[in-house]
Amino acid sequence: MAIPHSLKTLLAGSALALLTAGQALAEPPALNGELRGTGDLGVVIERATGSVALVDTSARQVLRHVEGFGDLSHASVKFTRDARYAFVFGRDGGLTRLDLLTGEIDGRIIQGGNSIGGAISQDGRFVAVGNYEPGGVKVFDTETMELVIDVPATYRRPDGSTAQAKVVGVVDVPGNVFVFSLFEAGEIWTLDMSQDEPELTQYRDVGSMPYDALITANGRYYIAGLFGEDGMALLDLWHPENGVQRILPDYGQGEQRLPVYKMPHLEGWAMAGDQAFFPAVGRNEVLVADTRDWSLTNRIEVHGQPIFVMSRPDERQVWVTFAHPLNDKVQVIDTQTHEVIQTLEPGASILHKEFTPRGEHIWISARDSNQVVVYDTRTFEELARLPAESPSGIFFTHRAHRIGL
Amino acid sequence: MAIPHSLKTLLAGSALALLTAGQALAEPPALNGELRGTGDLGVVIERATGSVALVDTSARQVLRHVEGFGDLSHASVKFTRDARYAFVFGRDGGLTRLDLLTGEIDGRIIQGGNSIGGAISQDGRFVAVGNYEPGGVKVFDTETMELVIDVPATYRRPDGSTAQAKVVGVVDVPGNVFVFSLFEAGEIWTLDMSQDEPELTQYRDVGSMPYDALITANGRYYIAGLFGEDGMALLDLWHPENGVQRILPDYGQGEQRLPVYKMPHLEGWAMAGDQAFFPAVGRNEVLVADTRDWSLTNRIEVHGQPIFVMSRPDERQVWVTFAHPLNDKVQVIDTQTHEVIQTLEPGASILHKEFTPRGEHIWISARDSNQVVVYDTRTFEELARLPAESPSGIFFTHRAHRIGL
Repeated sequence: MAIPHSLKTLLAGSALALLTAGQALAEPPALNGELRGTGDLGVVIERATGSVALVDTSARQVLRHVEGFGDLSHASVKFTRDARYAFVFGRDGGLTRLDLLTGEIDGRIIQGGNSIGGAISQDGRFVAVGNYEPGGVKVFDTETMELVIDVPATYRRPDGSTAQAKVVGVVDVPGNVFVFSLFEAGEIWTLDMSQDEPELTQYRDVGSMPYDALITANGRYYIAGLFGEDGMALLDLWHPENGVQRILPDYGQGEQRLPVYKMPHLEGWAMAGDQAFFPAVGRNEVLVADTRDWSLTNRIEVHGQPIFVMSRPDERQVWVTFAHPLNDKVQVIDTQTHEVIQTLEPGASILHKEFTPRGEHIWISARDSNQVVVYDTRTFEELARLPAESPSGIFFTHRAHRIGL
Repeated sequence: MAIPHSLKTLLAGSALALLTAGQALAEPPALNGELRGTGDLGVVIERATGSVALVDTSARQVLRHVEGFGDLSHASVKFTRDARYAFVFGRDGGLTRLDLLTGEIDGRIIQGGNSIGGAISQDGRFVAVGNYEPGGVKVFDTETMELVIDVPATYRRPDGSTAQAKVVGVVDVPGNVFVFSLFEAGEIWTLDMSQDEPELTQYRDVGSMPYDALITANGRYYIAGLFGEDGMALLDLWHPENGVQRILPDYGQGEQRLPVYKMPHLEGWAMAGDQAFFPAVGRNEVLVADTRDWSLTNRIEVHGQPIFVMSRPDERQVWVTFAHPLNDKVQVIDTQTHEVIQTLEPGASILHKEFTPRGEHIWISARDSNQVVVYDTRTFEELARLPAESPSGIFFTHRAHRIGL
């Protein structure tokens, strides 16, 4: 075989030259009842005003600010399987359905005292909400928003009395199953909604105070972070008979116990091939583990204490945001070399970020600048700066089609 | 740490019982100008009549049959980034844009003599079409459908004369790049559309007669099947400086050279963790390779010569269709045990299949039964049987949000 070689040609100065240079961005279709696809829509949580900005990722514009969502501090969002509606989980226990096509709230209930997130089932029929107060999970019909099932997170205390634990880390997995963790109880539960009679499975003694969790993109591994001790709890949902196992036993070791609200988020764990990139606790490091045996393989020094560590969809870059007071920067790590290849300063108090589905752009919320900043992830060029009131979470509709998102 | 244990509870006969048992499926919103999300739409190619069936994967119904697409034998489909429009690549060189919300053809051009597929760029602006006659790639603006650039696949024959090669395996990869193969020339080309002046890179002597290709889900590895010799050609797009390498050197060895139209499709290669499942050539086997070094690790005996080998989105199952005359069955392989766990008989002449985005269902086209059959992938229960004229390719809109799909 001849040794392959390559030849580069610039197709300039010829009939091949690109005809669309300087093409202006199309105006976004307004929300005036006109038909439009929902594949390039998204929402940005505006936490201070209890509103959301409805955005168009093709036009890179805010279509509308919608009010009336209640307390949106720490709010999160899930999309229906037709990508028309966003369910917004508010801190006040509100569950609000936003119609992305009309820009109007289509349904809203106060379902609990204090909810921190939820998930939509694989078949799209059910939306589960995890609650702090009273602790438990409530499942609603995504169409009617009627209660389908109420699962109090009841556990037995050492003294024999019972209580309801705060529920964290609610995710959906294949088989129409919800998985979640009980903070005070140190338990992981699965709720199988595939039959007319839902089945609850409880995994006890998984570790002290699970405070957040993630699910791998294939829906197989559920990993809960532990606030009360070192290590993390892993449930292999393909082999539930193995129970919950402990991984990364040194995770958190010797590190200061920070308040829960400063613990790193786990949802954004970046998986790239066999590597997992994730935030260290209380250290200015991003950690790398081998997902085949969950051994720690590297520590990457970064600007501050990482909060969200997220992989670009092609897994070639990992983007990192940081905890206060070093939350003014965003850093980009190369997943092959583990080097920090870029440091950006989008604005004040960087809270969240979201890649466009195929990864060409990233949207970053700068809360105290009241702006969402859009970058090209290849050139790091700033493409747009959009107005938003204290923006935090950013969520695009392609999540409707991903396991665990 | 206490040994974790689990406790199963059926939540029956209590206030927790599921209230929605027997809930009827919602009627699909008709295409009468009403607003609707586009996340659960799709198209089924009806090859005999040059029409497509527009389908709703939530209601599991055909919304409309749309005619006027020309010759749809071997047709394929790509979706715009807003998931509103489907570009249909016809065998007659037709490029047709279907508006999924109105159910009407929105634009149609005859751009070449014989096209076999194409791709939409990462940024959504460009649609590339690969042509057999005359051989080359044409790139159009997805909004205006105007020609942006024409790249004839010109190569030098051994006698010094030049000709245009048939273009196969057109895919999009991150960076707004198209990749494709030249059948007679034995070359792989990349076309970088990220700058105003597109850049063409040609990889020569990659192997004899590349007839189809695939791109891994992260957009990193482009793999072309070779009709003229054993092995496959691999281009690592993260390391183009390494040129094109040969993998799986025995692939096809000793196997009968079948006509191109019976060679297995490569697009559907199933990746599950570090394993790649793919069709043997001319043998009743599915092959398994380790993607870390592309070594062959197993051969799984199946019902017939596999054509499409596709992974359920959670990577736990691989579904296989077969070549004529054994194309009456579909088999399911467990990716952990490599055992055939199910054999289904959806109908006569099984041609294609598509999973719903999160994998709860699969849609299978039975051409000579004039039906599309929908199964639950967990229970293998048949859920629906929909009318379609000689159905072949099935494509759902979530592909808009995936690299290379």
